[in-house]
Amino acid sequence: MTALSPHPDRLLPSDPTERAIARRLYAEIAGLPIISPHGHVDAALLRDNRPFGDPAELLITPDHYVTRLLHAHGVGLGRLGIAENGAPSPASAREIWAEFCAGWSHFAGTPVRYWFETELHDVFGITRAPSAANAGELYDAIAERLATPEYLPRALFERFNIEVLATTDDPADDLAAHRDLAADPGFSGRVLPTFRADRYMDPAESTWIAALGRLAAASDIDTGSYAGLLAALRDRRAYFARHGGTSTDTGVIEATGEPLAEAEAERIHAAALAGTLAPGDAVAYRRNMLYRLAEMASQDGLVMQLHPGVIRSHHAATLARFGPDTGHDLPDSGAFTRPLRRILNDFGVNPTFRLALFTVDETVFSREIGPLAGFYPSVYAGAPWWFIDTPGAIGRYRAAVTDSAGFGKTTGFIDDTRAFCSIPARHDMSRRADAAFLAGLVAGHQLGEDEAARIAVDLTVTQPREVFRL
Amino acid sequence: MTALSPHPDRLLPSDPTERAIARRLYAEIAGLPIISPHGHVDAALLRDNRPFGDPAELLITPDHYVTRLLHAHGVGLGRLGIAENGAPSPASAREIWAEFCAGWSHFAGTPVRYWFETELHDVFGITRAPSAANAGELYDAIAERLATPEYLPRALFERFNIEVLATTDDPADDLAAHRDLAADPGFSGRVLPTFRADRYMDPAESTWIAALGRLAAASDIDTGSYAGLLAALRDRRAYFARHGGTSTDTGVIEATGEPLAEAEAERIHAAALAGTLAPGDAVAYRRNMLYRLAEMASQDGLVMQLHPGVIRSHHAATLARFGPDTGHDLPDSGAFTRPLRRILNDFGVNPTFRLALFTVDETVFSREIGPLAGFYPSVYAGAPWWFIDTPGAIGRYRAAVTDSAGFGKTTGFIDDTRAFCSIPARHDMSRRADAAFLAGLVAGHQLGEDEAARIAVDLTVTQPREVFRL
Amino acid sequence: MTALSPHPDRLLPSDPTERAIARRLYAEIAGLPIISPHGHVDAALLRDNRPFGDPAELLITPDHYVTRLLHAHGVGLGRLGIAENGAPSPASAREIWAEFCAGWSHFAGTPVRYWFETELHDVFGITRAPSAANAGELYDAIAERLATPEYLPRALFERFNIEVLATTDDPADDLAAHRDLAADPGFSGRVLPTFRADRYMDPAESTWIAALGRLAAASDIDTGSYAGLLAALRDRRAYFARHGGTSTDTGVIEATGEPLAEAEAERIHAAALAGTLAPGDAVAYRRNMLYRLAEMASQDGLVMQLHPGVIRSHHAATLARFGPDTGHDLPDSGAFTRPLRRILNDFGVNPTFRLALFTVDETVFSREIGPLAGFYPSVYAGAPWWFIDTPGAIGRYRAAVTDSAGFGKTTGFIDDTRAFCSIPARHDMSRRADAAFLAGLVAGHQLGEDEAARIAVDLTVTQPREVFRL
Repeated sequence: MTALSPHPDRLLPSDPTERAIARRLYAEIAGLPIISPHGHVDAALLRDNRPFGDPAELLITPDHYVTRLLHAHGVGLGRLGIAENGAPSPASAREIWAEFCAGWSHFAGTPVRYWFETELHDVFGITRAPSAANAGELYDAIAERLATPEYLPRALFERFNIEVLATTDDPADDLAAHRDLAADPGFSGRVLPTFRADRYMDPAESTWIAALGRLAAASDIDTGSYAGLLAALRDRRAYFARHGGTSTDTGVIEATGEPLAEAEAERIHAAALAGTLAPGDAVAYRRNMLYRLAEMASQDGLVMQLHPGVIRSHHAATLARFGPDTGHDLPDSGAFTRPLRRILNDFGVNPTFRLALFTVDETVFSREIGPLAGFYPSVYAGAPWWFIDTPGAIGRYRAAVTDSAGFGKTTGFIDDTRAFCSIPARHDMSRRADAAFLAGLVAGHQLGEDEAARIAVDLTVTQPREVFRL
Repeated sequence: MTALSPHPDRLLPSDPTERAIARRLYAEIAGLPIISPHGHVDAALLRDNRPFGDPAELLITPDHYVTRLLHAHGVGLGRLGIAENGAPSPASAREIWAEFCAGWSHFAGTPVRYWFETELHDVFGITRAPSAANAGELYDAIAERLATPEYLPRALFERFNIEVLATTDDPADDLAAHRDLAADPGFSGRVLPTFRADRYMDPAESTWIAALGRLAAASDIDTGSYAGLLAALRDRRAYFARHGGTSTDTGVIEATGEPLAEAEAERIHAAALAGTLAPGDAVAYRRNMLYRLAEMASQDGLVMQLHPGVIRSHHAATLARFGPDTGHDLPDSGAFTRPLRRILNDFGVNPTFRLALFTVDETVFSREIGPLAGFYPSVYAGAPWWFIDTPGAIGRYRAAVTDSAGFGKTTGFIDDTRAFCSIPARHDMSRRADAAFLAGLVAGHQLGEDEAARIAVDLTVTQPREVFRL
Repeated sequence: MTALSPHPDRLLPSDPTERAIARRLYAEIAGLPIISPHGHVDAALLRDNRPFGDPAELLITPDHYVTRLLHAHGVGLGRLGIAENGAPSPASAREIWAEFCAGWSHFAGTPVRYWFETELHDVFGITRAPSAANAGELYDAIAERLATPEYLPRALFERFNIEVLATTDDPADDLAAHRDLAADPGFSGRVLPTFRADRYMDPAESTWIAALGRLAAASDIDTGSYAGLLAALRDRRAYFARHGGTSTDTGVIEATGEPLAEAEAERIHAAALAGTLAPGDAVAYRRNMLYRLAEMASQDGLVMQLHPGVIRSHHAATLARFGPDTGHDLPDSGAFTRPLRRILNDFGVNPTFRLALFTVDETVFSREIGPLAGFYPSVYAGAPWWFIDTPGAIGRYRAAVTDSAGFGKTTGFIDDTRAFCSIPARHDMSRRADAAFLAGLVAGHQLGEDEAARIAVDLTVTQPREVFRL
C-alpha cells in the first residue's frame, strides 16, 4: 500500500531559492483563520451539530467534483449514491466508498486528489492512500472517527479555525438556522447567509412561479407584479442583512445587465404568469433583473458576487434520471467588459456598490477581469472558480490579474464548496499557491520579501474581510 | 560550422531536482514502441518498400510546417519544390535543400527545428547544423544513406520501433496497400486504415459530386440519395473495420452536429446534385452528416477523431497557384461544449461511442475539452495538434486538461504527420514533455514518483492502445 | 523607509543555470541603443528642449497606467491632476505626487511598479521607495534635478541612448517639430513621424467632419468627396515619408478590412457630410478605410502598424467629466485571421506591404498572430501591448508566437509610451524578459547559447530596424 503523507513543501516551487522564500511566506499565513465568504455548507449542519453520516454520504455522493470524474471513467452515478428517478441508490455506503477507492488513480494530478490527500490525512488521520484493497479498512477508520465528539460539525468548525462561513440561501429562506446559531451562547463562530436570487431571474424557468409564491409568503409582499417582486427582493435583502448577510450571489448564463422600462418589465412579468412569454422576453427580463440586483446593491451595500458562464445540465438524460448538480454543468466562454457596461456605467464608481467577478473561462483574467478591476473602484477580481480552482490555475490567475489590477483588487480565496471537511485543505492549497507566486516575484527581484509577506497576509485575511464587508 | 548534437536532457526542466526526476521518468518510456493512431503516411510506402526519393522530396517539399515559415521569410513556394499551376517546380532538389539550409536560423526555437535536429542526427547521422555553407555536403550525406537498404521504409519502420501506424484514407479507397501489407509474411508491423469521410460532408464543395461517384463505385451502393450515401458510408466503415481500422477522422470547420429529418436531408442532397442548394442548406447538411457519423460510431464502435476549427487555404492566390495544404491553413477560434451538445446528449454515455477531441485553439483545453472529458465517458482529450504540437504547448495542455480530466481521459500523443522520418523525433518530444510535466508534479509533491512512472507508461503506450481500441 | 535599489538580476529566472545564461545574454544587449518605432512622445518636447514640468505633470497625471489603478483604489481622477469639465484640477502638484506615493503599495507586482523603480532609481537617483512619509522629500529631489541641464529632454535623449524615436501624428500635422529637429545641427537623434489616420476612418464620429477640414487645409486637396479624402491621405503619407516617416499606425475596434465599390464609398461619404448616414454605413466605411490604408501601404511601403480591439472610454461619466484616455479604455476579445482575410489575400504576399499586428487579447498569439506571421511574408507579430506589456506576458507571448513564427517574424519591443522618462526602463524590461525566455531554451537544450545571443541582439536592434524600414 502507498503511504499517504502530504509533504510539508507541497505546491511550493522546485527551485531552492524560490522554495525557501515560499516556505517563509507560507509560514506567515498557514495558521491564520479561515474566511469563507462564499460556499454551500448548510447552516443547519452547525446549528444541529449532529454527527455526520457515513463516509460516502459525507465525502463522495454530494461532491460533483468527485462523481464527475468517476463517471467519466464509466462508473454510473447510481453506483455513487445519487438517487435515480427519485429512488434511492441501490449502492450501499461501503460500495460507494469502494468505487471511489478503486478509482483513486483517476484523480492523479487533479485538485480533487490534492484536497482528499490533505483532508484524509489531516482531518481523519488516514496514512495509506485509498485503493481497492484497503477500501473497507479506510471506511471503518473514517466511520469510527465520525462517531466521536471530536468529529461533530462544531468541533470541526473550531478545529478548522473558521472565522467566518458564508452560506448560500434562497431569498425566501427564513434563516432560522443562522438566527439560532447567532443566538446560541455555545457557538461563537460567525455563520452568515448569502442572498441568492437565481430562481427569480428567468421567467421561462419552470420553477419561477412557485418561487414567486414562496417569496411572497416569506416577505408578505405580493409578487404577482414585477414591482412587487422587486419590493419583496428588497425586503428580503434587508432581512438577510439583519441576519448578518453582507453579500449576494448570482449565477447566470451571461453577465449582461440591461434595464427595462418598468412597464415593459411588468408586461413580461404578467405574460410569464399567464404562460404567454414572447420570444426574447425571458432573456430581456433576466438581463433587467441582473441590472436591478446591481442597482439594489448600489443602494444597500450588499456585495454582489457574480458567477456567470456555466452551462447547466449539459446532458439531458442525466438531468432527467439523476437531477441537476450531478457533474455535467460545463463552462461557457466568458465575457464581462461589454456585458457589464451598463451596470458599470451606472454604478461602477458608486462607493456603496461592490462587485466580485468570477469566471470558469481563464481567458478573461488578463483581457477583462484584471482591466475592469484595475479601473473601477467597485470591481474585484474573484479567485479562480470551480473547474479552475486548482494550484496551476491560481498561479495563472495571479500572473494574469496582477499585471492590471495588482493584488489589492482581488477577493482572496473562495472555496465555494459543499464539502465541509475539505474547507481547510482548499484554503491551504490557495495559501500555498499564493506563497509560490509571491516567491517567484521575490526571487525575480520584483518584490521585497517583507512586502510579499504583508501581501500574503492581506490576501488570506485582510482583503476577504474588507472586500466582503465582514 | 555549428555542431548538431541533441543533448540527452533536452526539453527536461532546468531545476536540478525536477530534471533528475524527469530523467528517470523519461528513461522508463524512451524505448517503448511507437503507437501512432493518427497520421498521413501512405500505406503504399511500406507495401512497396522502394527507396525514398531525394532529401528535398523526402524532407522539405511535402512538409508544410517547413515550407510555411520559409515562405514567411520570403522564399516562394515554387523555390521549395511545390508545383505551380500544375507545372513542376523549376527548383532542383539540391536548390530546394539549399533554401532550407540557408533558412535554418529562421526555425530557431520552433518545433520544426527541434524535430529536424533529432531526425537529422538520429536517423541520418548528421553532426553539423545545416547552413548555406554545408547544404551540398549534407545533401550528399543524406542522399547516400537513402540509397542503402537500411533506409528503405520497412527498415526504418523496424528501427523506429513502430507498433501501430494508422493512415488516413478516403472511404472509397480499396485499402489494397493495407491488405497487401497484412498478407505479407515479410512484414510484421501493424498498418491500419482510418476512415476519413470529409469529402462527403459538404454538398457545396466542388468535389462532392465526384466523390459520391467514387464512393458508389467502391461500395456498389447508389449514392444518388442521402439514404444511399449513409448506406454506402456504413458499408465502407465495415470494410475499413475488416481491414483493421479502429477509428475514423473528421476535419470540419466547426464541431456542430445537428440531425436533420430524413426528408429534409434528402431534399438537400437532391438539390446539391441538381445545383440548386438554398442558402444554409450546405451548413445544415454538413452538421447533419457530423451527427450521422457520430451515430454510426455509436453503433459500430469505430473511434471518432474530431479535428475541427481550421480555416483552410486562407490565401486564395496561393491556393490557385500551388493548391491546398501549402501552409496557409490557419486556426479558427474553437468551441466544443455547445456545438457537441446534441451529439453528446444522444451518444455521450453510450459505451460503444468514443470521441477524441483535437483543437488548434489552446483556450478550449481548460474551458471545454478538459471538462467534457471529465464528465462524458465517451470523450477523450486529444493531444495538442498542428500549430500547438510543441513542447511548450504540451506543457500547457497537461496543465489545463489534467485539472478537470486527469491523465486517464487523454489520448496520448498523436503525430499527425506525413513526414515519416520525423515520427520518432515527434514521439520522443512528447515523451520528454510528459516526463517534464510529471516531474513538476513529483517535485511539488502532488504525485509520487512511482505513480508518475506508471502514468508516463500509460500515456505512451497503454492509453493509446485502449483509447483507439487497438 | 524601504530601500529602492533595483537588483541587477531582476526579471531573470530563479534557476541558477538559467539565471547564469540569462545574465550573459542580457549583458550582450543591455547597452545597445534604443529603437522606439511606436510611441506617443511629442516631437516638440525635443525640438524646444525646455525643462520638464513638475514631477506630477511629468510622471503621474498624463500616465493612465498610473492613474487607472489609483482610481481603482478610490482616488478620484481630479485628485490626480486630470482636468474636470475643462477646469484645471484643484490638486497641487505636490498633492498629486503625494497621492501616488501613498498608493505605492497598490502597484506591487505590476509593471508600473517595475518601471517606476527603475526610472526613479536610474534616471532620478532616488534610493528610497515612495511612501506617504517621504512624498515631499522625493518631490523635492526630483524637482531639483528637473531644473538642471542634465534633465533637459535632449540631454536625457542622449543619456537614454535613443537611436530612433517615432512619434504619433495626425495626417494634418505639419511636422514642423520633426523638420526643425532634422535641420538642427545641435541634435543628432532621429525623431520620426508616424501617420495615424484614425480620425478619418469613422464617419459617425463627431470629430470626422472637422478633421476632414483640417486635412484639406494641410493637403490643399478637397476632402468633400471620398476620392478627395483618399487623395489627401496619399498626399500626406508622401509628406510624412519625406519627413522621415517609415510607418503608419491605426487603432480601430476590429481588424476587419473590406473594400467598398467607389460609388458606395462616395455615397456614404456624402451621407456623412449631410448627416444622413444609414445603419451600417459607418461600419462599412470604416472597414473600407482600413482596406484602403492597407492598399496604400502596399504601394508606398509605409509599414502598417495595427492596434485593434480596444473599447474606448468604457465609462461614459468619466469620459464626460475627464475626457478620453483617462484609464477606462478596456480590451475587447480579438480576432485577426478572419477579419484580415481580404487584406491579406490582396496584399499579404506583396513585398512592399508590411503589417505589424498588436493585440490586448493574449489568446490570439498562438491562435492567430503566430500562424499568420508564420505564413505571410508581410505579417509581423507585434510585441505585447498596453495591458499585457509586462514581464509575464512577454514570456507568454514568446512561448506562444515562437512555436509558429520563430523569432524572426516578431517586431522587437514597442514601448508605445507617452512617459518619456520611462522609455529606458521599459526597453530594459523587455531585454530582460527576452534574455529570460532565451535562457530557458538554452538550458532546455533547444538552442545553443551563441545562437541565443545573436537572436537577443536581433530582437533588440536588428529586427526593429529592418521591420520598420528604419
